[in-house]
Amino acid sequence: MDADALRALMDDVASGGVEPDDAVRLLQRLPFADIGIARVDHHRALRQGLPEAVYGPGKTAEEVALVVAELLTGGSGPVVLSRAEKVQVEAALAVDDSGTVSGRTVVWRRAEPRSERILVVTAGTADAPVADECATVLWAHGIQPDRLADVGVAGLHRLLADLDRVYEADAIVVVAGMEGALASVVGGLTGAPVVAVPTSVGYGASLDGVTALLGMLASCASGLSVVGIDNGFGAACAVLRLLGPPAEAST
Amino acid sequence: MDADALRALMDDVASGGVEPDDAVRLLQRLPFADIGIARVDHHRALRQGLPEAVYGPGKTAEEVALVVAELLTGGSGPVVLSRAEKVQVEAALAVDDSGTVSGRTVVWRRAEPRSERILVVTAGTADAPVADECATVLWAHGIQPDRLADVGVAGLHRLLADLDRVYEADAIVVVAGMEGALASVVGGLTGAPVVAVPTSVGYGASLDGVTALLGMLASCASGLSVVGIDNGFGAACAVLRLLGPPAEAST
Amino acid sequence: MDADALRALMDDVASGGVEPDDAVRLLQRLPFADIGIARVDHHRALRQGLPEAVYGPGKTAEEVALVVAELLTGGSGPVVLSRAEKVQVEAALAVDDSGTVSGRTVVWRRAEPRSERILVVTAGTADAPVADECATVLWAHGIQPDRLADVGVAGLHRLLADLDRVYEADAIVVVAGMEGALASVVGGLTGAPVVAVPTSVGYGASLDGVTALLGMLASCASGLSVVGIDNGFGAACAVLRLLGPPAEAST
Amino acid sequence: MDADALRALMDDVASGGVEPDDAVRLLQRLPFADIGIARVDHHRALRQGLPEAVYGPGKTAEEVALVVAELLTGGSGPVVLSRAEKVQVEAALAVDDSGTVSGRTVVWRRAEPRSERILVVTAGTADAPVADECATVLWAHGIQPDRLADVGVAGLHRLLADLDRVYEADAIVVVAGMEGALASVVGGLTGAPVVAVPTSVGYGASLDGVTALLGMLASCASGLSVVGIDNGFGAACAVLRLLGPPAEAST
Amino acid sequence: MDADALRALMDDVASGGVEPDDAVRLLQRLPFADIGIARVDHHRALRQGLPEAVYGPGKTAEEVALVVAELLTGGSGPVVLSRAEKVQVEAALAVDDSGTVSGRTVVWRRAEPRSERILVVTAGTADAPVADECATVLWAHGIQPDRLADVGVAGLHRLLADLDRVYEADAIVVVAGMEGALASVVGGLTGAPVVAVPTSVGYGASLDGVTALLGMLASCASGLSVVGIDNGFGAACAVLRLLGPPAEAST
Amino acid sequence: MDADALRALMDDVASGGVEPDDAVRLLQRLPFADIGIARVDHHRALRQGLPEAVYGPGKTAEEVALVVAELLTGGSGPVVLSRAEKVQVEAALAVDDSGTVSGRTVVWRRAEPRSERILVVTAGTADAPVADECATVLWAHGIQPDRLADVGVAGLHRLLADLDRVYEADAIVVVAGMEGALASVVGGLTGAPVVAVPTSVGYGASLDGVTALLGMLASCASGLSVVGIDNGFGAACAVLRLLGPPAEAST
Amino acid sequence: MDADALRALMDDVASGGVEPDDAVRLLQRLPFADIGIARVDHHRALRQGLPEAVYGPGKTAEEVALVVAELLTGGSGPVVLSRAEKVQVEAALAVDDSGTVSGRTVVWRRAEPRSERILVVTAGTADAPVADECATVLWAHGIQPDRLADVGVAGLHRLLADLDRVYEADAIVVVAGMEGALASVVGGLTGAPVVAVPTSVGYGASLDGVTALLGMLASCASGLSVVGIDNGFGAACAVLRLLGPPAEAST
Amino acid sequence: MDADALRALMDDVASGGVEPDDAVRLLQRLPFADIGIARVDHHRALRQGLPEAVYGPGKTAEEVALVVAELLTGGSGPVVLSRAEKVQVEAALAVDDSGTVSGRTVVWRRAEPRSERILVVTAGTADAPVADECATVLWAHGIQPDRLADVGVAGLHRLLADLDRVYEADAIVVVAGMEGALASVVGGLTGAPVVAVPTSVGYGASLDGVTALLGMLASCASGLSVVGIDNGFGAACAVLRLLGPPAEAST
Repeated sequence: MDADALRALMDDVASGGVEPDDAVRLLQRLPFADIGIARVDHHRALRQGLPEAVYGPGKTAEEVALVVAELLTGGSGPVVLSRAEKVQVEAALAVDDSGTVSGRTVVWRRAEPRSERILVVTAGTADAPVADECATVLWAHGIQPDRLADVGVAGLHRLLADLDRVYEADAIVVVAGMEGALASVVGGLTGAPVVAVPTSVGYGASLDGVTALLGMLASCASGLSVVGIDNGFGAACAVLRLLGPPAEAST
Repeated sequence: MDADALRALMDDVASGGVEPDDAVRLLQRLPFADIGIARVDHHRALRQGLPEAVYGPGKTAEEVALVVAELLTGGSGPVVLSRAEKVQVEAALAVDDSGTVSGRTVVWRRAEPRSERILVVTAGTADAPVADECATVLWAHGIQPDRLADVGVAGLHRLLADLDRVYEADAIVVVAGMEGALASVVGGLTGAPVVAVPTSVGYGASLDGVTALLGMLASCASGLSVVGIDNGFGAACAVLRLLGPPAEAST
Repeated sequence: MDADALRALMDDVASGGVEPDDAVRLLQRLPFADIGIARVDHHRALRQGLPEAVYGPGKTAEEVALVVAELLTGGSGPVVLSRAEKVQVEAALAVDDSGTVSGRTVVWRRAEPRSERILVVTAGTADAPVADECATVLWAHGIQPDRLADVGVAGLHRLLADLDRVYEADAIVVVAGMEGALASVVGGLTGAPVVAVPTSVGYGASLDGVTALLGMLASCASGLSVVGIDNGFGAACAVLRLLGPPAEAST
Repeated sequence: MDADALRALMDDVASGGVEPDDAVRLLQRLPFADIGIARVDHHRALRQGLPEAVYGPGKTAEEVALVVAELLTGGSGPVVLSRAEKVQVEAALAVDDSGTVSGRTVVWRRAEPRSERILVVTAGTADAPVADECATVLWAHGIQPDRLADVGVAGLHRLLADLDRVYEADAIVVVAGMEGALASVVGGLTGAPVVAVPTSVGYGASLDGVTALLGMLASCASGLSVVGIDNGFGAACAVLRLLGPPAEAST
Repeated sequence: MDADALRALMDDVASGGVEPDDAVRLLQRLPFADIGIARVDHHRALRQGLPEAVYGPGKTAEEVALVVAELLTGGSGPVVLSRAEKVQVEAALAVDDSGTVSGRTVVWRRAEPRSERILVVTAGTADAPVADECATVLWAHGIQPDRLADVGVAGLHRLLADLDRVYEADAIVVVAGMEGALASVVGGLTGAPVVAVPTSVGYGASLDGVTALLGMLASCASGLSVVGIDNGFGAACAVLRLLGPPAEAST
Repeated sequence: MDADALRALMDDVASGGVEPDDAVRLLQRLPFADIGIARVDHHRALRQGLPEAVYGPGKTAEEVALVVAELLTGGSGPVVLSRAEKVQVEAALAVDDSGTVSGRTVVWRRAEPRSERILVVTAGTADAPVADECATVLWAHGIQPDRLADVGVAGLHRLLADLDRVYEADAIVVVAGMEGALASVVGGLTGAPVVAVPTSVGYGASLDGVTALLGMLASCASGLSVVGIDNGFGAACAVLRLLGPPAEAST
Repeated sequence: MDADALRALMDDVASGGVEPDDAVRLLQRLPFADIGIARVDHHRALRQGLPEAVYGPGKTAEEVALVVAELLTGGSGPVVLSRAEKVQVEAALAVDDSGTVSGRTVVWRRAEPRSERILVVTAGTADAPVADECATVLWAHGIQPDRLADVGVAGLHRLLADLDRVYEADAIVVVAGMEGALASVVGGLTGAPVVAVPTSVGYGASLDGVTALLGMLASCASGLSVVGIDNGFGAACAVLRLLGPPAEAST
Repeated sequence: MDADALRALMDDVASGGVEPDDAVRLLQRLPFADIGIARVDHHRALRQGLPEAVYGPGKTAEEVALVVAELLTGGSGPVVLSRAEKVQVEAALAVDDSGTVSGRTVVWRRAEPRSERILVVTAGTADAPVADECATVLWAHGIQPDRLADVGVAGLHRLLADLDRVYEADAIVVVAGMEGALASVVGGLTGAPVVAVPTSVGYGASLDGVTALLGMLASCASGLSVVGIDNGFGAACAVLRLLGPPAEAST
């Protein structure tokens, strides 16, 4: 609610078109729905252009189902359930069986396809689940990301063989564990936005992803954007933020 | 690739020994200048659309001057010297006194002004130097960022009073130390790209910025892009990456 | 045993009313009960006005039952068993089945209701178990806390919609994981005592609650009181300390 | 601004007593003063009952003077400058020389004396500066704290000799470095609120205060409130929060 | 093998009493037994006066049995198996069923009783298993330690009630988790050797024993000896070292 | 004050030999001297058999002088000032110029010589200052420690050449930085008490002594006693504890 | 580069269209096989002389089988599957049952035996699995390493008894947990290359191998080469790197 | 002293050619020189083929001079003084002014030139001092290393332009700070031994070199050998170990 909307409301009150009590209620209640266990933030999707999302861990299957139901009835954009256990997926699909399941992610009401070219690069095979989460969330929003798998820097020519795909991308998500060096290399090759996702792949000195995280933050390639460890969802949201709303939405 | 090599290549193209397309490919590869102490990467500016930059710490004044000189003679875009000591600034200005000094940053050959609206927000007065570094690097690239200072979450209404400026921004850089909560709040208010810069402001449990860094990475606001502690330069580069080259450059 | 009591004892000894050997025993034995596996501190409840409590982890079911039995027979105030495994709950209820079970907490001999207004706020649905533990311990002591759920800073208006409840509280417990920013925001809104409880909710950079803990300690909102990670019990005790004994108890 | 105030404003608009544009301005501008380098939050003092405070580090002497001047002219309660360098103190006193200097803290407009009994306990002589900061901030708000120095647990009888002062206190601030065990001992002796301040006193395994901080958070004495390392200011604010506004203010 | 023994050997060689080759073998083979999977160090018991010990974790049941068998046949002092899984205990007892099982520790060939007074103090009930391990290893060496349980500093009078036992001890082992403050308090009360054992009891800020460890190392009570987390075995060995060999052994 | 002393006091009160008020005062005031800035614990020397000590850091020169003066007039055993700055040393010697200065340590009233053989071993030349502090504190208490320098494990034969001195020692202090392996090796060679002191010598992965500290705590040689980093004073106190009071004192 | 591309290249060489030298350069670049889930880097074995390896964790059994199949059909040297779960081993052996299983490692196509003397030393019995992984990978490449087990520094003579084997080795791998001191001792005894492998053996202060890792990095023995925690595979590769290709391969 | 030498000595004793007492002395005194402050290990140079070295930090200028003097008179190979302060360099050169100073390193008695090709690669200009230390120590031993500077992965073509020098090297030292990714890239390009040296270059998330250290340990390129942070000396020693003694020495 920006200043113009506020002024319009004031004018309505001044002119008697809106009762003072109603204005109070309006001002106090931006659009969220209090369903007891949660305050579902329908406004966030409008405000941020991001999918309405439910993060599974720490919620019971019933809670997941309740929130998904509210998002599907109260909102209008894509709905994403992430990191869901099997029982949570089942409870959520029981609410609405039109959801598409991909790994531990479920998507309802996929957005209209849009044409930006997003490249999701992984360093190793074991980074795939994180990249999948990212790709699925992008897909929920209408994007069909390009995938480039297993191009870690220990065999640099595997990446160099597909440089064209790197140069053509509007934005690149680099998913890498261990030392996370792939983000620096990709960031050095292109001036496009690079969202770096450290993964907890590796052992010993990988410190469950902290090594890759620190490496990406300290990268000698300037301007990398880093998200949290294994946070494929967050990387997709960072991409959606920089792409902005789809072209048709601005008309 | 020095002048002799370049002349030889041109001769080959002229004589038909090298196809023009091949020469283009050749020129796209390898343009750096080996000046002994450094391999100055003129290609990076072309490749990435980022300013050619010299990071002061760890270099002697002479080394700084040498690299700045090479960047000014061998390249053509903005040149930035960052985190420079007084003696490094002086040595660099002795090379070319047209540089603009702002804090510990020096800029030569500012780019043509461009019109994107970037908002740089700080939580407290002490975060200003990091925000200044970010703003100066953006300025080097033609952007005149909007500034919103001292709006930390302990007095939330100070931010809410200027929500319009938040909503109008094409991208927002949030610079905050201590617990870094401002990034989460801003990220929750807008769907625009948010680049979060943790600062080493604070003491005790601030752990020289690690607390803010972790808080931003773990933010409940999805899709924040985080850069390293106090890395105003990196935040500016992340913004430049997502803006892409200026509109006139794409014609 | 303060100086007055000590002087009275000395007077009794001097007057022959108390035998020297008895005085020695008295002085050596402040009120605790040595039941072999533990020294049950009945004096603590008197001394501190806190519930007599048994912390489940690391104790066998038999040990839990023994200590609960001693507390119920030797003391007189509320008794709390926390973080109990199912088998511990059963063993304790076998001692006295009047206990009220709430999650992993059991309460016997709830205190008389008292009227202070305590607000327990959570950032997300997954923070609920920690908030429940806190609320149950408060309830054991006669307080019926107000609850405000799922008002994390990523959707700030969800909190702002209930500012009245924030302003009316005599003390507020903020339970938050991830970056813990909610504590700073609440602390900035009110001058009432704020007890901040970091939770281990979140993943990656949340570091099992360390990020929220550090953020709360480094908060830009002055005067937050912080307790240990997931320590709902401790937060309730901190509230009980600041409320002091119930009004009727001071008559 | 609570719902009642909001409704009154709406009524005024509805009745024509307030112009809509004026209401907008009012709603947008809760009381802070934008002085360029900072947004001075006069509302915070009202809202929180805490002193208006300036934290010295990271600010120039000029910035300190500007903010102090604004606080003295725009507000009405006590003003505190903390962790100030000599040059900052001088610049601030040049604005208004009525300030009282105590160590690195300066206080203007001390509040009316109030009568709560606050005990500030230190474990060793070297903890004194942190305790002094705490005591000075309490003094700014009208409280004359009791002090108990050098009673660390290595010589427990030094504390036991003054148990009366412990039992009489309305709240206790325990300032301790090294292993911070004094907080646990005091917390075990009394049911009053205990605010524990870890200090960076000690060496080696003290880890600049982290050991004391962790020890206080993990204390076996329930309900300790912990603030950040060396944060005497924060401890004083935590005490002020739990005391609430002075008695005369509630009439 | 000290200089005297070496000289005697040389004399034997010089006199022809020992063949050179035999001397080589002798010098090369101090008393250990190579049983393939391990080199059992019988000399250590002689050299150090410590029990011959087998640490269970990381060994198969067969390996445990082999080493125990070698220790029982090749050595002559007490044999201790520690941290053993059930299957390891069974395999070891199958070798020699005269072992005494206590918790996860098994002892064979207990040494002659000796009379030093060792006090093992625990802060809470959950510290008992670590204290048990310590007491069992002491018992293996002929010592019957005194036990003082559940005297954590949150109820200091529980310890003060038994000061005599503290003052009478020749050495004290303090076993404590959480913040480990009991070690400081005991160390401040007595000048006897104090061996502090941090335990992993507690949660959140206890950091699996690191908090107690750091607190003990940083203790304001001088001269505490600290061993590793949960290392009851090590604490017993530290006590055995400082007691030296039994009195009758020195005759 | 043990139970016998307490009973004697009670008898005196019962018999009228001591007035009740005097008994109160006696019980409340174990022997310490409150000199304002500190509570000097004269009882500790009696209680612990350790030197009365002043730790320099964090105290002003005046405070150091005051405490030293009190210790010299109010006590009777050795007095040690440790980690003193030059100005502190001068202020303390101005109080009593009979002190012996050794590095940053000053000793007054050295105890009668005693005959136990203590060996202080260092791994490298740079460990000497910590070993010196330890040796000086031992010397204050009448012990003339044997020194064995620069026998780090990288040249093991340097240690093996002096095995006799290792075997003859009643207790050994091992002072080592870097990886601290010397403590394990010495601990494996002898069954005497080994006090291990990690030092902050080294760089990079030495982590200011944390590496050596962890290595000593995790040592494969059982029963090492570890003190804090660079804590030569603490190591000496640990030795004094295990030696007990001098032989003549027990008569 | 598939068969068609290869044939085309050969045609070009045959026809004189491509110079042989250029074909060599071409063949040295880019030979990897894109099998969808992975880009199998056959070139790495040629380039590095290291075994083609599949790291099990994070891959499904199907993925393991696919990659193993590709390595066996597309390459020609030894193939190693490491850290494999039982189901992965079975899937891989179903592809080609000629693999040799050793612990969690499987080897196909062992290389020709070669004669360098590599010594793998372990500190304790529990370090054996890591040493086994290292030895198996060396064996895959034709080396039959010498093994020296259970020679930790707590019983130094166990190592000294076999100094000849230490002195004869061309390179030594030291596998040690706890404090990792064995690496320093071995490194001090020999000038041969020493590859140090920290293991996660131990508890408490061992910090899952971090203590040993830090100790090896900070070793007072110069020139130790360290690999990651428990990384027996990496240690074998480090040895293979320093040995270089087998002698017959250089003809 | 191996078994053959020992047997020869025994034979001499048996034959009367060596007196038993002399044998004892011989066995007890491997060649080191006890100069009071240090035990100079002349045997190490023979034993390890490494330069005799003095590490400056923590030693007085006099101590440095004493040790250097002993090394020059008592040994015969190269002598290296590292990390020396100006005053240490001067004191050492006063002993023998034939030393060659390079940065903070001084070399006396450089070894005969040898021909192995060692490549020292740095990621950035600021890594040069560490690489210089490494190169100087190699030079002391007769090697003239090839240098490749400023080829960090942010501009990968700078490295690719000199691949031949990478492929020709017998061993490569990679010196890199920030995220240390260059080590992974180089390790992926070549099968030669790669010694990775993390440097403390960088800021914020570089954590003084810990990020690069962890990244190198967790590298996806197998078989990297890692040394401590900034440890150019150690890297040189690791190279010398793997090269073995010079060819002429083996004749």
